[in-house]
Amino acid sequence: MSARAVTFGEILHRLSTRHGWRFEQSTAYDSCFGGSEANVAVSLSLLGIPSTFITRLPDHAIARKCIRELNGHGVDTSKIVISGERMGTYYVEPGRSFLGGQVLYDRRHSAIAELNADMIPWTTILNDANWFHWSGITPALSRDCFKSLAEAVEIAGKIKIPISVDLNYRQQLWSWTSSPVEYMTSLIGSCTLLKGGKNSIAKMLGIDGTGMSEIDLAGTIHSRFPQLKHIAFTRRTSHSADYNTWQGVLWSEGKIFESQEFEIRQIVDRIGTGDAFMAGLIYGLVHQKSSQETIDFATAAGAIKHSIHGDYNLVTLEEIEGLLRGEKIKLKR
Amino acid sequence: MSARAVTFGEILHRLSTRHGWRFEQSTAYDSCFGGSEANVAVSLSLLGIPSTFITRLPDHAIARKCIRELNGHGVDTSKIVISGERMGTYYVEPGRSFLGGQVLYDRRHSAIAELNADMIPWTTILNDANWFHWSGITPALSRDCFKSLAEAVEIAGKIKIPISVDLNYRQQLWSWTSSPVEYMTSLIGSCTLLKGGKNSIAKMLGIDGTGMSEIDLAGTIHSRFPQLKHIAFTRRTSHSADYNTWQGVLWSEGKIFESQEFEIRQIVDRIGTGDAFMAGLIYGLVHQKSSQETIDFATAAGAIKHSIHGDYNLVTLEEIEGLLRGEKIKLKR
Amino acid sequence: MSARAVTFGEILHRLSTRHGWRFEQSTAYDSCFGGSEANVAVSLSLLGIPSTFITRLPDHAIARKCIRELNGHGVDTSKIVISGERMGTYYVEPGRSFLGGQVLYDRRHSAIAELNADMIPWTTILNDANWFHWSGITPALSRDCFKSLAEAVEIAGKIKIPISVDLNYRQQLWSWTSSPVEYMTSLIGSCTLLKGGKNSIAKMLGIDGTGMSEIDLAGTIHSRFPQLKHIAFTRRTSHSADYNTWQGVLWSEGKIFESQEFEIRQIVDRIGTGDAFMAGLIYGLVHQKSSQETIDFATAAGAIKHSIHGDYNLVTLEEIEGLLRGEKIKLKR
Amino acid sequence: MSARAVTFGEILHRLSTRHGWRFEQSTAYDSCFGGSEANVAVSLSLLGIPSTFITRLPDHAIARKCIRELNGHGVDTSKIVISGERMGTYYVEPGRSFLGGQVLYDRRHSAIAELNADMIPWTTILNDANWFHWSGITPALSRDCFKSLAEAVEIAGKIKIPISVDLNYRQQLWSWTSSPVEYMTSLIGSCTLLKGGKNSIAKMLGIDGTGMSEIDLAGTIHSRFPQLKHIAFTRRTSHSADYNTWQGVLWSEGKIFESQEFEIRQIVDRIGTGDAFMAGLIYGLVHQKSSQETIDFATAAGAIKHSIHGDYNLVTLEEIEGLLRGEKIKLKR
Amino acid sequence: MSARAVTFGEILHRLSTRHGWRFEQSTAYDSCFGGSEANVAVSLSLLGIPSTFITRLPDHAIARKCIRELNGHGVDTSKIVISGERMGTYYVEPGRSFLGGQVLYDRRHSAIAELNADMIPWTTILNDANWFHWSGITPALSRDCFKSLAEAVEIAGKIKIPISVDLNYRQQLWSWTSSPVEYMTSLIGSCTLLKGGKNSIAKMLGIDGTGMSEIDLAGTIHSRFPQLKHIAFTRRTSHSADYNTWQGVLWSEGKIFESQEFEIRQIVDRIGTGDAFMAGLIYGLVHQKSSQETIDFATAAGAIKHSIHGDYNLVTLEEIEGLLRGEKIKLKR
Amino acid sequence: MSARAVTFGEILHRLSTRHGWRFEQSTAYDSCFGGSEANVAVSLSLLGIPSTFITRLPDHAIARKCIRELNGHGVDTSKIVISGERMGTYYVEPGRSFLGGQVLYDRRHSAIAELNADMIPWTTILNDANWFHWSGITPALSRDCFKSLAEAVEIAGKIKIPISVDLNYRQQLWSWTSSPVEYMTSLIGSCTLLKGGKNSIAKMLGIDGTGMSEIDLAGTIHSRFPQLKHIAFTRRTSHSADYNTWQGVLWSEGKIFESQEFEIRQIVDRIGTGDAFMAGLIYGLVHQKSSQETIDFATAAGAIKHSIHGDYNLVTLEEIEGLLRGEKIKLKR
Repeated sequence: MSARAVTFGEILHRLSTRHGWRFEQSTAYDSCFGGSEANVAVSLSLLGIPSTFITRLPDHAIARKCIRELNGHGVDTSKIVISGERMGTYYVEPGRSFLGGQVLYDRRHSAIAELNADMIPWTTILNDANWFHWSGITPALSRDCFKSLAEAVEIAGKIKIPISVDLNYRQQLWSWTSSPVEYMTSLIGSCTLLKGGKNSIAKMLGIDGTGMSEIDLAGTIHSRFPQLKHIAFTRRTSHSADYNTWQGVLWSEGKIFESQEFEIRQIVDRIGTGDAFMAGLIYGLVHQKSSQETIDFATAAGAIKHSIHGDYNLVTLEEIEGLLRGEKIKLKR
Repeated sequence: MSARAVTFGEILHRLSTRHGWRFEQSTAYDSCFGGSEANVAVSLSLLGIPSTFITRLPDHAIARKCIRELNGHGVDTSKIVISGERMGTYYVEPGRSFLGGQVLYDRRHSAIAELNADMIPWTTILNDANWFHWSGITPALSRDCFKSLAEAVEIAGKIKIPISVDLNYRQQLWSWTSSPVEYMTSLIGSCTLLKGGKNSIAKMLGIDGTGMSEIDLAGTIHSRFPQLKHIAFTRRTSHSADYNTWQGVLWSEGKIFESQEFEIRQIVDRIGTGDAFMAGLIYGLVHQKSSQETIDFATAAGAIKHSIHGDYNLVTLEEIEGLLRGEKIKLKR
Repeated sequence: MSARAVTFGEILHRLSTRHGWRFEQSTAYDSCFGGSEANVAVSLSLLGIPSTFITRLPDHAIARKCIRELNGHGVDTSKIVISGERMGTYYVEPGRSFLGGQVLYDRRHSAIAELNADMIPWTTILNDANWFHWSGITPALSRDCFKSLAEAVEIAGKIKIPISVDLNYRQQLWSWTSSPVEYMTSLIGSCTLLKGGKNSIAKMLGIDGTGMSEIDLAGTIHSRFPQLKHIAFTRRTSHSADYNTWQGVLWSEGKIFESQEFEIRQIVDRIGTGDAFMAGLIYGLVHQKSSQETIDFATAAGAIKHSIHGDYNLVTLEEIEGLLRGEKIKLKR
Repeated sequence: MSARAVTFGEILHRLSTRHGWRFEQSTAYDSCFGGSEANVAVSLSLLGIPSTFITRLPDHAIARKCIRELNGHGVDTSKIVISGERMGTYYVEPGRSFLGGQVLYDRRHSAIAELNADMIPWTTILNDANWFHWSGITPALSRDCFKSLAEAVEIAGKIKIPISVDLNYRQQLWSWTSSPVEYMTSLIGSCTLLKGGKNSIAKMLGIDGTGMSEIDLAGTIHSRFPQLKHIAFTRRTSHSADYNTWQGVLWSEGKIFESQEFEIRQIVDRIGTGDAFMAGLIYGLVHQKSSQETIDFATAAGAIKHSIHGDYNLVTLEEIEGLLRGEKIKLKR
Repeated sequence: MSARAVTFGEILHRLSTRHGWRFEQSTAYDSCFGGSEANVAVSLSLLGIPSTFITRLPDHAIARKCIRELNGHGVDTSKIVISGERMGTYYVEPGRSFLGGQVLYDRRHSAIAELNADMIPWTTILNDANWFHWSGITPALSRDCFKSLAEAVEIAGKIKIPISVDLNYRQQLWSWTSSPVEYMTSLIGSCTLLKGGKNSIAKMLGIDGTGMSEIDLAGTIHSRFPQLKHIAFTRRTSHSADYNTWQGVLWSEGKIFESQEFEIRQIVDRIGTGDAFMAGLIYGLVHQKSSQETIDFATAAGAIKHSIHGDYNLVTLEEIEGLLRGEKIKLKR
Repeated sequence: MSARAVTFGEILHRLSTRHGWRFEQSTAYDSCFGGSEANVAVSLSLLGIPSTFITRLPDHAIARKCIRELNGHGVDTSKIVISGERMGTYYVEPGRSFLGGQVLYDRRHSAIAELNADMIPWTTILNDANWFHWSGITPALSRDCFKSLAEAVEIAGKIKIPISVDLNYRQQLWSWTSSPVEYMTSLIGSCTLLKGGKNSIAKMLGIDGTGMSEIDLAGTIHSRFPQLKHIAFTRRTSHSADYNTWQGVLWSEGKIFESQEFEIRQIVDRIGTGDAFMAGLIYGLVHQKSSQETIDFATAAGAIKHSIHGDYNLVTLEEIEGLLRGEKIKLKR
């Protein structure tokens, strides 16, 4: 199997406080990098699926550090556009008990948000690709990001490679248009795999799922976008900021498949769990696993991500499979 | 509303080990500051009630750091007496599972413990005050601390501002007299709001509440100190050092009001939770909230403090109100 | 009581990642030291039983740091053989939720693994000893380690001091022989106290306990090794890597004694809990406590160890006894 | 003496690498705050001159931390405009040997850069001021920053309080106009005290000082801006990034005054040394010290700043005066 | 220019104490990776010359971290042999004043030391190479390392690509033979560029340079190994552990070229400076710079490395060239 | 040689800021322990001279950590009196450039300062001693400390073991008497070896050495205290807080012996250098080295201490001897 997956979006510099410390008292930050589509690219690479990440980054030392880490994890960064002025940044105060995690974004005017639509040579990039992935964050960044993405989706559609989308609605980002639905729906029609929640589906697809079951909601979506073969959801119950349950649900061609429910008692880092799940879905589909196997794998991948600091799901295939097999959690010597 | 609350007590230098490390193995400490009445002053200031903190501190760089932090949080420190030799210190090893947290006090002979009763010009200080708060730690420090406090209580009574007291019994501190009851009860008669537990009530008020319900105990106290309008208790169950339940109870003029019970599964820092609760009570009363609203607010303020490193409850009003409204605990982007 | 306990085994340099960080992302490690028999020696010393630890270590600064720490905890290190080239090392990534802790050993070719059997003057060392303890790790290290251990066991048997063994089966270590059972059983016959699990009993004693209760299994072992008076087990359920239940079971001369079951909700460090338990058993027997008291004490000692970073159980006797008395877990001021 | 100095400019979030670590390898940053005019305000406050800092900052937790620290150091922050989206940020890799320090700015589109000129009520703010200070960074930020500053300078001129300026030329910032000279010179005519170097004088005042002595250059400047009574320069020789010599020169009404030359062998932090020097000049003039005393004081203040991490010159008046007196550098017990 | 340089040797896990802390007091270590030939590969890649690093590493998480970092810096790691048991390790206590830096090696029995000579497919690897580099450490590791290296040297010679060698004599390593001279000299005859000091030349080439000038010594070496076109030396004077002078000398086809002497006053990390110098020589020769330019460039590269934590010379070409041009060392904004 | 040296004094908890950080900005401290006489005891033990340290410490976890570290370094702590309430503490901000190091003492009312003179059984303690060492800090602590010390000196005199004293004048400590000279001189008459500076000699011995050479001053002292055979001085020039020269001078029975002058360019920690020097003198005299050898050894020991964090001189004999032999300072592999 030699699919090369291409993902497109923003990667940000992430600065995190110490556990239990508020921004108001922090005098040091841990530094790493992440962004929804980059996180998917890293996961796919670590799971053995070659991946290419497309973004725009300025030419400075911290962006270089970011690129070198992506390289290190095996992601092809050779197509990243190096120009522009700033790198998006976000600050994280991890949640605990009754204090939900805080994310403070500082991403406006980043190099990718100021992309020109013609900067990315999609035909060349998608030439040897077998998968294209994007999230709803990318078109929200600017009209040109939307345009470039639309071009990518069009080309991917033409060359008939699967396209996946994670809706990832971020209200504050959609500043360049008042009608995200119009723009988002113009792209969804070419996608095969969609992941979203009720809120993002309402805001981005214009479909109100209030009171609907997942099977009904997926059916409604599918009736609008019949090319979609797989629609995925996650169910999360937050007993507290560090104690959640988490379950994955996959609608595949009319049927619903549910993973087991994971009880996660001590969350290290929630950020990136959805991306780990997304990468797990792609992994399952690329490897032509059954829908049940796919949702099981994806949910296990996301569950395990809760235990890892940073955006990236730094696990091995063996570790996910061990969790799937229900191996006893023990000290591995 | 422009009440200025005045609190009087000791603030200490606090040195904390890393989570999971014993004093016997620690080679580094985190440094911050705290003390019951200072913590209340910080909370009030952050909740929008101007506050003044009265203490005595030596003239050295670490005490300056302490004062600058109080300033930073908006507490008026201009009336602090700068003289004396040492700053009280305490060391903290945070609890976890079966190891309860350890506090190692090194506060004897601190500047405030060696206060002369005439060092604090209470008439001036209380001139523009609308509230006076103290805790049972202050009179325990020395006979002169008691005397100065008694003067403050007397003046506050004369100018008819509300007085609150947190009993905060510390057995080791009461070394200057064998009869704390005599001295404490001479001060309680002027107070409006009292917070205490059964043990401190017995040791400091001489009232044995064994086997009594909170309503009966409060009634008994009230019969002795009829000026007390509000008597507050907290109920804590320690399933382990980091997993507690916590609930507030307020007796107000004959009736009992209970908050919801909070289940706190991962405690970052227990110290200062009672002070956060106390500040919440004062906040409710200053803002003439109902008794139910007051105990709900105070308990939520205390609950959320369990998630914050250090003595101070570095939360915003919005965060407490969000918890009160039962908002879902989620990642805030 | 002035028993001097002697323990014999390997002590390793331990390098641990930060909580929540994978090896793949770690740029710093905490350094400490530990090894099954050294951990027992430290526990005994801290509980008031003089102890001597026997091993072989190279003459370099990090080994000196290790020895000084043992000294500091009161362990007699004067008999350690100082020669050889390397110190065994192990890396730890602590477990959390669905990621079990990872131990990465780098202990081959350590000074003790390359011991010559005649390097340790057992007659002198055991001269003033009242107890001898070893674990199944020591004979696994090399044929010479086995030989030296066999000499120690023989001498200890001759001078009639109690011998305890923790089976501690480590499959990767047994490389010098394909028949550990043969070698292990030659040593067990002199022991008084044995601790093990079903897997280690099968692999090292050749006794298959599948489906057997602890009393039956202990009975079977005892029938083979009638000198064994006490056989101890622990029961652990891992709800997640940081949430376990833990219980001790002691078979003493035909009867089973169970401790209470501890529910450990937030594990700081699992490593060394079995050694803390082992030391607790020895403590009970040395002090001629009843079997029930002994298993209660040992299990409490092991339970509390889960809250302490590093291999050593840095608790006081008072803390274990407080837990045994069921004292409320509170902030100790 | 109760002068209140007002300073106006940008304060940034500063993130610094560990000494000896490049951006390309850093996984953690120390966080503090600084900016030329804020640094001056902090210095003045610590030297006993009340100060007010004017800027615009967004309403978020990290900006709050910044404001609380300024408060803590006694700076009046009550007039800061709280609105806008982002806080300027800069990253620092401290210099050492042949690697000069690196500053990576990320300050475009900050709240102050997007100021509206009418947001700051200068008449009110300057009402009780005795000094106004700005630097050439402020007008470079945007046309509106220039306009607001021009208004401040005009009002300060009208009410006849001294105005000081530090030219602080930053080429990258001047993007809104191609003729900084025109705008800068419109402001300088009202100033009393100017600090600059040859490059900034050329670029901002249009005066080419190539080959000129400081007395000649100052004379030339003065002939253009006759209101200027004091013109200050610093001389720095960088033997390496951490070994510099540093000397101050002050032209006062036609005469040159030189400080001693300091040999600084181990620089902790160069950033903010010019601001510490600037504050020292203002201190001297406010206290009507002689020109020689003023330049001596200012240079000593700047020299000592090289030893302090962060932007702020956290020294006491006594420490500067001790250095001025040539006190032996010893361990103070 | 698209030369691909291949380097062959051991890469080790490096654990460093905090500056000023002895091994005997360290409880934490910074972790990075390095080894002479890997360091050269990283430098070449960062200078724009594609490089491939050949070694053998075990299949575990820390070795994966090492490989990912090499990847990140652009080094081709796809040919590394993944098998064996342990990764060589070394501990560093950085020098300061009169305490020279301490390196504590723990590299025996590493995966590469236990290499089988036939594990590395040299013909394939060197197929597209334009340069081959090794150091005297590699053949010292074991007879099989020597054999594999000899094969590489033979093939490189056949395909006529330049070969460079850094003698790097490590007495402790040469345990498999008592005659390193015999083995080393069998390899030197194919090399074009050699770097060494008098001691290593004596021990490894059997040429006693006592009292000889560099030109005479190089001449003597050249007379023995006439294929050597370039012989490089460094001159270091250690005024103290952190204050050295450093100069490079290059003998090229009969003439001596000296770089300027750098005075390095505050050394961050001496390790890897020779490798940075070596990479600079290769860079110069690959780019057909003059001998003077080459030694200037190499020495500047090595000089700047003294300021960077870790083994790798994480500089940009621009930074080396700036130092060469004698640019003022200043704060770069 | 089996001399057991006994030292008597206070050991304090030391909390140090990060290099380059002021107390006013520090949120974390490194923790270690030290005190003049304890430092001497540690040095002697590490140099192979068994030592016993006598003090009084409270029974709490941080004091236990202190004792365990002393144990670890081989110091006999079995005679320490365990009672009292607090442990003396001191805070250190290390010096750099023009900021001399700051020591902030918090040692009043420590357990040893509140010693009863009869708590220490000197006859038993000195029974097997061959040396007794004290410093001028000990009698300054309290009248009872003086009394107990006087008893020790008397007994040591009777049993004719050498007594050494380091004058160590601390003005703030001498609060219990206005005439330290009277008390100090009553003890000096029994001493063999004295170390002091001009200021301490004036204040504690009443001998004004202004303008005197060391030989004359020593002669004058000797004429008063003819039992003194050795009088030692150190000469320090502070070019800056981190760049000093340092030289030792020993007057031995009428002659002056000078060590080489060490140029120390980058001081890690000045504290404890005098104690390292003192221990070096004792080492020389115990080993009956010549006066020249003794002063050379002691000065080298003190010089090397400047490079080690903390109070203790954690060096090996080999390292001091290497420095004495003038070995090149290099990276030791």
